[in-house]
Amino acid sequence: MTDSLLARLRAVVGAAHLVTDAPEMAPYLTDWRGRFTGRALAVVLPADTHQVAAIVDACAAARVPIVPQGGRTGLVLGSVPDASGTAIVLSLRRLDRIRAIDPANRTMTVEAGCILYDIQQAALQAGMLFPLSLASEGSCTIGGNLSSNAGGTAVLRYGNTRELCLGLEVVTAQGQVWDGLRGLRKDNTGYALRELFIGAEGTLGVITAAVLKLYPQPKAALTALVALDSPRSALTLLGLLQERCGAALTGYELMSDFCLRLVASHFPDLPRPFAAHYPQYALVELSSSESGDHAADLLESAVGDAIDGGVAQDAVVAASVSQSIGLWKMREHIPLAQAAAGKNIKHDISLPVSRIPDFIECTDAALQAAFPACQVVCFGHLGDGNLHYNVAPPPGVGHGSFLAHQEAVKRIVHDSVAAFSGSISAEHGIGALKRDELARYKPAVELDMMRAIKAALDPLGIMNPGKIL
Amino acid sequence: MTDSLLARLRAVVGAAHLVTDAPEMAPYLTDWRGRFTGRALAVVLPADTHQVAAIVDACAAARVPIVPQGGRTGLVLGSVPDASGTAIVLSLRRLDRIRAIDPANRTMTVEAGCILYDIQQAALQAGMLFPLSLASEGSCTIGGNLSSNAGGTAVLRYGNTRELCLGLEVVTAQGQVWDGLRGLRKDNTGYALRELFIGAEGTLGVITAAVLKLYPQPKAALTALVALDSPRSALTLLGLLQERCGAALTGYELMSDFCLRLVASHFPDLPRPFAAHYPQYALVELSSSESGDHAADLLESAVGDAIDGGVAQDAVVAASVSQSIGLWKMREHIPLAQAAAGKNIKHDISLPVSRIPDFIECTDAALQAAFPACQVVCFGHLGDGNLHYNVAPPPGVGHGSFLAHQEAVKRIVHDSVAAFSGSISAEHGIGALKRDELARYKPAVELDMMRAIKAALDPLGIMNPGKIL
Repeated sequence: MTDSLLARLRAVVGAAHLVTDAPEMAPYLTDWRGRFTGRALAVVLPADTHQVAAIVDACAAARVPIVPQGGRTGLVLGSVPDASGTAIVLSLRRLDRIRAIDPANRTMTVEAGCILYDIQQAALQAGMLFPLSLASEGSCTIGGNLSSNAGGTAVLRYGNTRELCLGLEVVTAQGQVWDGLRGLRKDNTGYALRELFIGAEGTLGVITAAVLKLYPQPKAALTALVALDSPRSALTLLGLLQERCGAALTGYELMSDFCLRLVASHFPDLPRPFAAHYPQYALVELSSSESGDHAADLLESAVGDAIDGGVAQDAVVAASVSQSIGLWKMREHIPLAQAAAGKNIKHDISLPVSRIPDFIECTDAALQAAFPACQVVCFGHLGDGNLHYNVAPPPGVGHGSFLAHQEAVKRIVHDSVAAFSGSISAEHGIGALKRDELARYKPAVELDMMRAIKAALDPLGIMNPGKIL
Repeated sequence: MTDSLLARLRAVVGAAHLVTDAPEMAPYLTDWRGRFTGRALAVVLPADTHQVAAIVDACAAARVPIVPQGGRTGLVLGSVPDASGTAIVLSLRRLDRIRAIDPANRTMTVEAGCILYDIQQAALQAGMLFPLSLASEGSCTIGGNLSSNAGGTAVLRYGNTRELCLGLEVVTAQGQVWDGLRGLRKDNTGYALRELFIGAEGTLGVITAAVLKLYPQPKAALTALVALDSPRSALTLLGLLQERCGAALTGYELMSDFCLRLVASHFPDLPRPFAAHYPQYALVELSSSESGDHAADLLESAVGDAIDGGVAQDAVVAASVSQSIGLWKMREHIPLAQAAAGKNIKHDISLPVSRIPDFIECTDAALQAAFPACQVVCFGHLGDGNLHYNVAPPPGVGHGSFLAHQEAVKRIVHDSVAAFSGSISAEHGIGALKRDELARYKPAVELDMMRAIKAALDPLGIMNPGKIL
């Protein structure tokens, strides 16, 4: 049975693109953080949508599960197979063509295996912006971004990946090709299938191509680092900047003093903009479609008024693009500094923006009560209500031994998230890692509807089983 | 059977809110344009979500179809029952509370029966903007806007209704309440159920409440009317304004000379900004989060450069809010002037923005070949690729007799839409009116997936049967 399936797949993609040799398969089986290695019957690398359809058709006939895979940079074990060894890994990496750019429609049609960075560059070369931006952009593929509805640092202005996509091409679980590659900004002709496949983590079908929205390239972007006395002040400043700057506010990141001390201790060469320390900092990015002067005037006057009004304690406004990059580097080095300090317990959560100050206060207190002197590394996309709320051991306690408390720490944090009407996965998705958490916190009515949709679109249950549901 | 169901419904809502008397039912059975009157067992008007759930539960037990209804302003026969007389009309009008406003989260929680205008006003009173705006805003309800994914004049900047909603409360086809009233900007925990119920026209369940996004109120909005030599120039001007103004461009409407002549002949008191006539006009709206001066500088310099560069022929920039309102009135009076001239054949279509000039040229030519001297009333939201492409009889031919050609005209227009990769329903939805057209133009794979989802979420087929599918 397996042999005849593999023969059929080999006939579809050619012998060079069907991998069954264990060492050659290995890189496709291990997750990005190296925490889990699964097993598979084979890794298959189709060249085009037609081949993807033939592979799904063959696997459906053989009742063999399929694990779609892109850049394999996901953080929730969504794109690696389980340990059973019964699945085929379907890598979309060879579907890497930019099929078309339509400047007057501000759209680009790309295949699932295109690297995000390459898409950003192609947009730039066409004089436009594809705004999706995240840490793994040099390795992740747009198929993975779509399947996980990736977030990143530009959501405040441009939305999540779902908002950046106008059309999809999908191979269904029955091996049929759905051509939904529309480039329309208004289309009310039936159910939101595009939205449904986006964020479904490959459990309903395989995204093979997409029509992406492009935006005008801003003339200038400018960054400021603002010192604040509390998360509540950070929220007040956010409201003030939104009132004053509207859509020109393109980034708003919160970082605690502990985060920046961590960065400074591991990366001493990075800028240290303030002589004093403050409890919190906001990284503010403003973009102007007019000019650099316009961005600077707007940012300086808004931040100046925030200081005069007592909302902010101090601020550094970048005087150049390179200074802006330096300020962003502080933000971007927080995960690297954490990694250098040792493993900690990570949470990717979101909350109503208004509830973040109370959430931080209550959750910090609950953690201190359970694990005295534990250290919270809290930073994230405050403008989207998305915190990376990570917990490190008390000083003197080994990171490895503290990981033994992972379940108890997670329970405190996620229970608090639920109490504040938040989400246990803001931008990373569910995969296999958070499946039990999802079952714990989602309403039964919602889980039932999700299961009904899964059964309707993938009745054989072959699409990425064990993920999400 | 019917009697016992009605008794059960009466027990749920009280005798005063179950209408079975024919004259009293009549207003709930006729569509907005007065083209169709259906029949029903009864009209039921619940007071809250709990009552909606009890009604759906009772109808499911009795296998009686339910037609959810809001302000009944839809244009595609989506919210009125068919002629069979077997259905219950479920009016959501009494669910009209604004449950909460969260200024710091920029969200508002509203019930389905709230009138759009009331929501706009409540946002304004809280110092914010709910941007959804359309002709029927004084009568339509947010439940209907959500169920039809309404568009309107602010889509270019703020998106369709789907993009303006963060969370839903839904009564499922099984009569269960799904509390998905989240106020989160990032939430990747499973399938896009919110997106799926939005735009489903009540065929999958009943939307009873929603969390809406609010925006900062712009400091100023300013309008210009720009004279152009062709739709292609209108497209060039759109690109130029997007480059120069970014998100400050909040409206971009195209109107042909024929449209404005029609308005002038029926409403002679409206402003006539130009002494000469030009083939096309663009109504441009710019909003500034900074000041009126900023909006004026930006608009005047961009429009001035468009004239200097030969893109535009002439322009009038409103010098005041009242002048801006006057220019918008010209646009808003096009449908009224059409109605005054007599019935014509309407199409609500969308296209990739880049293909609009060729679409207009080809479709106009095809119509002239089939119906020499017929008159096309073409206007719409060019920034969204959405045209209201309506066809009036040749001079001297009666509007009534020309309506006999409706099917042939529609076939020419919709075949052309399909050839240019467009949509036969941009913002009005499908309802019962366009169901056959949907079946004609949608790929079979897509229709099959829609049917599978319908069967999965509404296995008894009681939710608004005969609409969409």
